[in-house]
Amino acid sequence: MQTDERPKHYCGIFGVFGVEDTARVIYDGLFSLQHRGQEGAGICVGNGERVFTCKGMGLVGELQNRPQFSELKGHLGIGHVRYSTTGAPRPANVQPLVVECIDGIWAVAHNGNLTNAHKLRKNYQEAGSIFQTSTDSELLLHLIADPVFRTRPLRVERALAELQGAFSYLVMTNNAVMAARDRYGFRPLSIGKLGSGYVFASETCALEQVGADYVRDVLPGELVVADKRGIRSSTFCEPVTVALGQCIFEHVYFARPDSVVFGQSVHDSRIRLGRRLAKEAPVEADLVIPVPDSGASAALGYSQASGIPLDYGFIRNHYIGRTFIMPVQSQRSDSVDMKLAVVPHVVRGKRIVVVDDSLIRGTTSRRRVNALREAGAKEVHLRISCPPTRHPCYFGIDFPTRTELVAADKTVEEVCKFVGADSLAYNSLEGLLSAVDHPDDFCTGCFTGKYPYDVGTEERRKNALETWAGAM
Amino acid sequence: MQTDERPKHYCGIFGVFGVEDTARVIYDGLFSLQHRGQEGAGICVGNGERVFTCKGMGLVGELQNRPQFSELKGHLGIGHVRYSTTGAPRPANVQPLVVECIDGIWAVAHNGNLTNAHKLRKNYQEAGSIFQTSTDSELLLHLIADPVFRTRPLRVERALAELQGAFSYLVMTNNAVMAARDRYGFRPLSIGKLGSGYVFASETCALEQVGADYVRDVLPGELVVADKRGIRSSTFCEPVTVALGQCIFEHVYFARPDSVVFGQSVHDSRIRLGRRLAKEAPVEADLVIPVPDSGASAALGYSQASGIPLDYGFIRNHYIGRTFIMPVQSQRSDSVDMKLAVVPHVVRGKRIVVVDDSLIRGTTSRRRVNALREAGAKEVHLRISCPPTRHPCYFGIDFPTRTELVAADKTVEEVCKFVGADSLAYNSLEGLLSAVDHPDDFCTGCFTGKYPYDVGTEERRKNALETWAGAM
Amino acid sequence: MQTDERPKHYCGIFGVFGVEDTARVIYDGLFSLQHRGQEGAGICVGNGERVFTCKGMGLVGELQNRPQFSELKGHLGIGHVRYSTTGAPRPANVQPLVVECIDGIWAVAHNGNLTNAHKLRKNYQEAGSIFQTSTDSELLLHLIADPVFRTRPLRVERALAELQGAFSYLVMTNNAVMAARDRYGFRPLSIGKLGSGYVFASETCALEQVGADYVRDVLPGELVVADKRGIRSSTFCEPVTVALGQCIFEHVYFARPDSVVFGQSVHDSRIRLGRRLAKEAPVEADLVIPVPDSGASAALGYSQASGIPLDYGFIRNHYIGRTFIMPVQSQRSDSVDMKLAVVPHVVRGKRIVVVDDSLIRGTTSRRRVNALREAGAKEVHLRISCPPTRHPCYFGIDFPTRTELVAADKTVEEVCKFVGADSLAYNSLEGLLSAVDHPDDFCTGCFTGKYPYDVGTEERRKNALETWAGAM
Amino acid sequence: MQTDERPKHYCGIFGVFGVEDTARVIYDGLFSLQHRGQEGAGICVGNGERVFTCKGMGLVGELQNRPQFSELKGHLGIGHVRYSTTGAPRPANVQPLVVECIDGIWAVAHNGNLTNAHKLRKNYQEAGSIFQTSTDSELLLHLIADPVFRTRPLRVERALAELQGAFSYLVMTNNAVMAARDRYGFRPLSIGKLGSGYVFASETCALEQVGADYVRDVLPGELVVADKRGIRSSTFCEPVTVALGQCIFEHVYFARPDSVVFGQSVHDSRIRLGRRLAKEAPVEADLVIPVPDSGASAALGYSQASGIPLDYGFIRNHYIGRTFIMPVQSQRSDSVDMKLAVVPHVVRGKRIVVVDDSLIRGTTSRRRVNALREAGAKEVHLRISCPPTRHPCYFGIDFPTRTELVAADKTVEEVCKFVGADSLAYNSLEGLLSAVDHPDDFCTGCFTGKYPYDVGTEERRKNALETWAGAM
Repeated sequence: MQTDERPKHYCGIFGVFGVEDTARVIYDGLFSLQHRGQEGAGICVGNGERVFTCKGMGLVGELQNRPQFSELKGHLGIGHVRYSTTGAPRPANVQPLVVECIDGIWAVAHNGNLTNAHKLRKNYQEAGSIFQTSTDSELLLHLIADPVFRTRPLRVERALAELQGAFSYLVMTNNAVMAARDRYGFRPLSIGKLGSGYVFASETCALEQVGADYVRDVLPGELVVADKRGIRSSTFCEPVTVALGQCIFEHVYFARPDSVVFGQSVHDSRIRLGRRLAKEAPVEADLVIPVPDSGASAALGYSQASGIPLDYGFIRNHYIGRTFIMPVQSQRSDSVDMKLAVVPHVVRGKRIVVVDDSLIRGTTSRRRVNALREAGAKEVHLRISCPPTRHPCYFGIDFPTRTELVAADKTVEEVCKFVGADSLAYNSLEGLLSAVDHPDDFCTGCFTGKYPYDVGTEERRKNALETWAGAM
Repeated sequence: MQTDERPKHYCGIFGVFGVEDTARVIYDGLFSLQHRGQEGAGICVGNGERVFTCKGMGLVGELQNRPQFSELKGHLGIGHVRYSTTGAPRPANVQPLVVECIDGIWAVAHNGNLTNAHKLRKNYQEAGSIFQTSTDSELLLHLIADPVFRTRPLRVERALAELQGAFSYLVMTNNAVMAARDRYGFRPLSIGKLGSGYVFASETCALEQVGADYVRDVLPGELVVADKRGIRSSTFCEPVTVALGQCIFEHVYFARPDSVVFGQSVHDSRIRLGRRLAKEAPVEADLVIPVPDSGASAALGYSQASGIPLDYGFIRNHYIGRTFIMPVQSQRSDSVDMKLAVVPHVVRGKRIVVVDDSLIRGTTSRRRVNALREAGAKEVHLRISCPPTRHPCYFGIDFPTRTELVAADKTVEEVCKFVGADSLAYNSLEGLLSAVDHPDDFCTGCFTGKYPYDVGTEERRKNALETWAGAM
Repeated sequence: MQTDERPKHYCGIFGVFGVEDTARVIYDGLFSLQHRGQEGAGICVGNGERVFTCKGMGLVGELQNRPQFSELKGHLGIGHVRYSTTGAPRPANVQPLVVECIDGIWAVAHNGNLTNAHKLRKNYQEAGSIFQTSTDSELLLHLIADPVFRTRPLRVERALAELQGAFSYLVMTNNAVMAARDRYGFRPLSIGKLGSGYVFASETCALEQVGADYVRDVLPGELVVADKRGIRSSTFCEPVTVALGQCIFEHVYFARPDSVVFGQSVHDSRIRLGRRLAKEAPVEADLVIPVPDSGASAALGYSQASGIPLDYGFIRNHYIGRTFIMPVQSQRSDSVDMKLAVVPHVVRGKRIVVVDDSLIRGTTSRRRVNALREAGAKEVHLRISCPPTRHPCYFGIDFPTRTELVAADKTVEEVCKFVGADSLAYNSLEGLLSAVDHPDDFCTGCFTGKYPYDVGTEERRKNALETWAGAM
Repeated sequence: MQTDERPKHYCGIFGVFGVEDTARVIYDGLFSLQHRGQEGAGICVGNGERVFTCKGMGLVGELQNRPQFSELKGHLGIGHVRYSTTGAPRPANVQPLVVECIDGIWAVAHNGNLTNAHKLRKNYQEAGSIFQTSTDSELLLHLIADPVFRTRPLRVERALAELQGAFSYLVMTNNAVMAARDRYGFRPLSIGKLGSGYVFASETCALEQVGADYVRDVLPGELVVADKRGIRSSTFCEPVTVALGQCIFEHVYFARPDSVVFGQSVHDSRIRLGRRLAKEAPVEADLVIPVPDSGASAALGYSQASGIPLDYGFIRNHYIGRTFIMPVQSQRSDSVDMKLAVVPHVVRGKRIVVVDDSLIRGTTSRRRVNALREAGAKEVHLRISCPPTRHPCYFGIDFPTRTELVAADKTVEEVCKFVGADSLAYNSLEGLLSAVDHPDDFCTGCFTGKYPYDVGTEERRKNALETWAGAM
């Protein structure tokens, strides 16, 4: 999947309780989750009496330049990385969201997408609440502050139980950091131990980064609270009984390969996708080359299973990705790729199998197929480690609209022609599911149009929360 | 009054409906209100369907560098300049505050201080509301969104009627810009006409800046609405019957001299203060010199009435005031003044009357008296155009605490000794009031400890809103 | 004189030897010379072994943000502020210029303009030298490095003697700071004592700022060396015998009023200009108002001599002058003045005498006369404290070209009509010279076209150094 | 080789004549050479009459933010990327260097290190020249300007012939762009054709990036001139007759794998290094893992030749490398690696062969070996694709001093113990040379201490040019 085709709603969250050098640990943790969101970042840290916040547009690294960063002193805290939407970014939406309720400060950081956000938001607004962001994430704060929940035991649990859709939430008070995961377990969330304290992270790679030991995942429907008494768990909602809705796209593309997500190594599942792809879609060829870095693991698997040697036909320029490059880029011709360069010596005169993780708009792939041919490749066979992406995601991945999805209304042959490859093949749905240990526990809605539950006509129409709240 | 002794809670507000080039007009208007708040600035503009916001820490001029600035397209909008508090600034508090309620987008910009903010905030929080800023300004949005007010006629009027204390408010919806002033009229707010549209501004200097014609002031207790039908007025609250509470400090120090505030030229009232001071506190001297720029008008009046020639003994460095100068400043000795320089040729061998508008902590004055003596002044007589400042303000001026007010527990003689002057005199309360046309309509609480109404023990204790909400 | 009409070639220089906290002292000194150049600033400091440099585009205050600033450790150093030329600024020209010659590091900071720069530059280039800047200031370094001078006694003196034109130079080696002034004394340069060390500054206001005691001026044709043995003087060139060429424009406009320049208080000379103007060009009027800040002193003198009361009809916005304001300014109508605001209450119905220091292009004055009329002034009489500026300056002031000088080809009546005043009058040349104690010692070339010496046809043509070296 | 152990003196150069959109092409070309220097970048462009320059500290991408960038209009130009030295960076040293000589503007961009720089510099200084940078690159400009060369035919050729040491130079005048390479051919430099114009680049990857066709390399001792008459060649110096001194470290580490350097694919030579290493230093193991990205190709070769499967045991974080991360990094413990993360699932319980390109200080390798063990690797065998680096480079690679080179005084066994590996092996010198087609044409001085020519005692001592000119 290419930079300019990336999903926009993904996020990464990270929280700690009882560790030393809190701000630095959160900073490092978020840094290793940077791939989950690159346009806004924030940290808030509490010392039991006050909560300090530092956030803004841009990469995690830029937080250090803000004057608020040096104020982040305390023993508990949470952080967030996020994508911004199109158009000028909205600084107000950068998380964590920090508010004051009747009983003190509450902060939240959220990864996912709520499918009853519209209804809940309207209900609270009807009752007189004001919303200062256009994110669905703000809803949990209104629920927590609501007397209906506030005045009864298991307040946070009850509040969480009201939410439908995909969410991994970190919640912070003056005294505790909590982690919750929706009943379908759409998004990952892990627990780690660091010294005498606790760490929560979207992916285990962030636990490794800060030197924390992986304990276990937060379970679907579970709320885990870390405070000075230690860690404890409760169930705010029964997990779905038949099958979970874990996002298979985390394994296909989004998560970092060194993470263990949903109990399984991401690198390993991608190797398996590649191996399966080699069996489902074999081809006579001289070389297998990955699209770096997202296709690296799958290409390795393809090479292993097919016996076709792996080589590096593309080189990634490590200095791209900074936004200031963009203004000039628009002036470049279509054939110029500032991110990947072909290694002519590798591909010249060869029959090439290019392995990538997914194919969204197809325009970048077309440019790269063309670049391989210009460099002298004899044949270019494109292999995609997941099935064609044809349906929207209501649970946190902001795929382009249907009209922009190259596979939406095209046959595989037509897509092949569009990108200019000699052949094109995807993994089948069965192939995709063969790569994970508990296939029933995954949502494959973006491939099949079948979702873990019916999100409802209304919600489908309104699911792009930012559209209806976009007046702000 | 010196830079480092400035009140912190003052703000400036500016709004327009139905003008061309909306963002530029608001930008220019705020620019001429920059003296009312220099640490944060914001503009929001609406086109009837969407509202665009651009705000951040820093001066008005820096808004142009933000990517959001170019999005500010529409025919109505409001803007705000504000002081930040001590410590690292809180970007979340920068106004206008923009929220979504059940019936659309609402935005507010506020100048003043509410004395029932604590109680109202707790009431709303009790009912389940969350607060995303630590400002009292946010309260009006909760009131407007409250079904109790929302569902009845005169909704905004009813909401405003709940507020106690000092406020000049601009309120913006998708279709209208409204301006309101509390029943005591603590803070100024004027109406102007620009082409076929309307303008609201804290001071008339902002009307002049954008080429608008002054129409009249918003009246105490009045709500003025500008929309496509024109302008119309209603009374949300009877103005106080006996006497208003207009802030006399606006005339003494805060407002720009080219403004007409509370119906009277600021420059003119300051000239009168100076003339009166010459009569109340005459002195044999060779020269009258102003402390630029705040003492300029009063010094002119003093010179006129006393017959002692005016001269410029201090020169102001126009390049100060940028925050990046501060880091080094702390390393300088007390006698170094980066802002004002003495003109040695003027003061050498002379008996000098120094006229300033106010004397808060006294440390800066002491340094300047010392600098005049080092430059060869024979005598230094300090004249202050207002009485000693000895009491807190609950209505929007953040004076230092009592222990920092040099006059709080010292006699005039003791203050004179502290600053090192040969003599020191203030205007009397009568002298102060003689400078304004309707003296009964002014609050003089900071001089007398007598306020237009009893703000209550609880509120006195809690009046520093940022203290109790400071946990955020 | 207005911001957009300012001369471009002026500069300020400041140096120290043997003081504590060298970088801070130079920084503060340059800060008080900021009015002499606002587009580039630099400091270099030496510790006897190494020389550290920090410079760049922008104001003095911005130097602190550069990583090199913290490296400025040592006991001697020099600094510079400069104007950039039109078009994109050239970072390479920012001074001090620091180079390595055969005998070590040399650095220079220069104020003035050399009239034999073109010839010398070509001579050195003919001999094989390369020039890395387009400034004439670089020449002195080539001369100092030249074996012809280097190998003989009085090397720096001999090098300086080669230069024609206007220069006040600071020269720094590993062990000494030197100050030199051309034989005509075009530009000011003063010596101060600070503790056991020495300070050099373009104006005495910078000595005051850092707490140094004024010792004397560097004399025309003198080189003063400060090193560990103390201070010593030599004469590199006989000063002109008949009359010096001190720039009278320093007194009219450029220097700060709190400075003593060429042995005379600037504020005092401006008062005298104003008094003389009142006699030369009296008018029936109600008020005298200055154009802040440059006309302040002259207006005071005019008021004193005429008996017409002074008042403040213009207010200066202290937040202007930052370049980021400019992009929007171009979109504003001609009548909008972001820098000065009229005080309507002062001018309404009055006959006004506006006193300014000079009139260059006339467009800003026209706008301001217009603004006074719109605010209700009955009559507007413009009085300029110097004669019409009609000739180029070859000695360091970059006046606009002749076609842009409003007085160049117009009679006073025509200029009056152009700016829209009821009357316009200038001081006569005699009036101008009456304000200084030794009138023969001043250059008045910009008014008379007669210069202290004949700069030569060639040099006149080539005098704009940046034009012929502008290819770089 | 790891970030913090990188050579500091490498640079990349890029030039064009007669292309469209000159600035954009140079910008793109430099962008693909960014790996050769990341701390300063510059471009100058000429239109036949004027030369415009834009340069500064930082990455190529930041040039676009400078106001000078938009001025870069013309049909010829050169650019440069460079490393800065330790301590605060010196903006003056950023290239291209642009100067004015008697016959116009000359600019140079240089990659390499001159071994007679000290002597030449002293000679020119003796003759009166001043040096404004501390780089050796400036020397060529002095030579070109020198009448001895200037007044005779083949001026640039004669100037180049004076230089000893390593250089690939781009030289620009108002009308031409020239490219030259020293007689030993230490550094690469290629010629490309783009439309009707010409392109020069340090590596062919930059030709590919801008869509230019590779023509040939500039030959050792050759000067190639591109101007409106086309392209022409001359020989300024006979190339060495026996063997060239091409830097083998370009193939081992520095160049991008998609480049053809010295006539040979870099990726291919690295594959060969890996294959040879597998034969020279076999080991029983389960997996081969590369150190990304520098060890990627060699690891692939090792895997191919050994039959041990390749896998990705390290993941590179793409968001590192921005300088603002550094301040916090110093606070982290030694075991934290912000750049590479181990993939625990891959290495757990496995016997691992880690393939890297080189081993300089050893501290980073030690940390990574440790991280692999913590992640559960059973054995860690380190394989380095070149021999131990034990000697300084006088030709452009700024290796750490001998005391910092881990292999300088240690046996391989001692180094192995230091990094904590189960085994450590390097390629032999023969192995290294077996990877390139013409082994005699390479300099292997950093491994053998034998250089293409004797650089001389004096030069050895003075070779660190920045040391002796470091006073500036």
